[in-house]
Amino acid sequence: MSYEFLLKDLNNNLTQKSIGTDKGLAKIGDSIVNLTYSIAKSIVLTRNSKINNSIRTGVKVSKTILANALKEANMKCFSKTRADAHDMADTVEAVVAYVWLSKKVTIEDIINILVDSLESNLTVRSEEIKNATIAFRNLLLEIIKFLPEN
Amino acid sequence: MSYEFLLKDLNNNLTQKSIGTDKGLAKIGDSIVNLTYSIAKSIVLTRNSKINNSIRTGVKVSKTILANALKEANMKCFSKTRADAHDMADTVEAVVAYVWLSKKVTIEDIINILVDSLESNLTVRSEEIKNATIAFRNLLLEIIKFLPEN
Repeated sequence: MSYEFLLKDLNNNLTQKSIGTDKGLAKIGDSIVNLTYSIAKSIVLTRNSKINNSIRTGVKVSKTILANALKEANMKCFSKTRADAHDMADTVEAVVAYVWLSKKVTIEDIINILVDSLESNLTVRSEEIKNATIAFRNLLLEIIKFLPEN
Repeated sequence: MSYEFLLKDLNNNLTQKSIGTDKGLAKIGDSIVNLTYSIAKSIVLTRNSKINNSIRTGVKVSKTILANALKEANMKCFSKTRADAHDMADTVEAVVAYVWLSKKVTIEDIINILVDSLESNLTVRSEEIKNATIAFRNLLLEIIKFLPEN
């Protein structure tokens, strides 16, 4: 099934801000971000497990990580003027939902991009925050080609 | 990428309870359940929109709905003994994550099964709860063939 009809109103007048400030897309993207990061983290932890066991984990990605990823990808223009961290995190979630609903990327694609960017040390919290920020910045830089130019 | 290696320890000794009581799987399944239900609900609301507009929404599926779906599918045997509603909801999330990680179903398959079971009236909360319970029961009945027999 195509989900394009869920984007009909947006696609009628597509701008960076119409996508990046859409509250419904942000809510959908919240689940996509948490799911894909949870799998990516599980994969990296399992690969690096010294006793070779499988590690499955679920994580809620913090608003700070997503907001910083948006800034580092130079994509604040997708948020509303004077956006705070919460608004910017919503923007990341919204653009991720948009490219997924448009079938430009799959859940597996997003997981692969995140895994490629996550370094080994996710067990130290400060390292995880740094690496997760880079991973989401890289995800944004990969998907920006599917988003409008202004 | 196959995610089978994330299930290695489970697959070494696969039982209904080893899947249904796995906390990591439940956390991963939580995102899958919320994502797929959000899209299914958006699809049904958009299709039924009288003014023909797109409706995108994000929902956190309640523990009660998932626990009742497990009971109605006669799958309490996947939960621990004397499981409460929270444990049973976790079991639904865990088995959904298991079949998805095993590549037996895709996110799109789950959305399609939920959409097929959701009736038109999701705007009245009590109707939505009833329909969502049926939808998740039907999902469980579809995926039980991919789960161990005891």
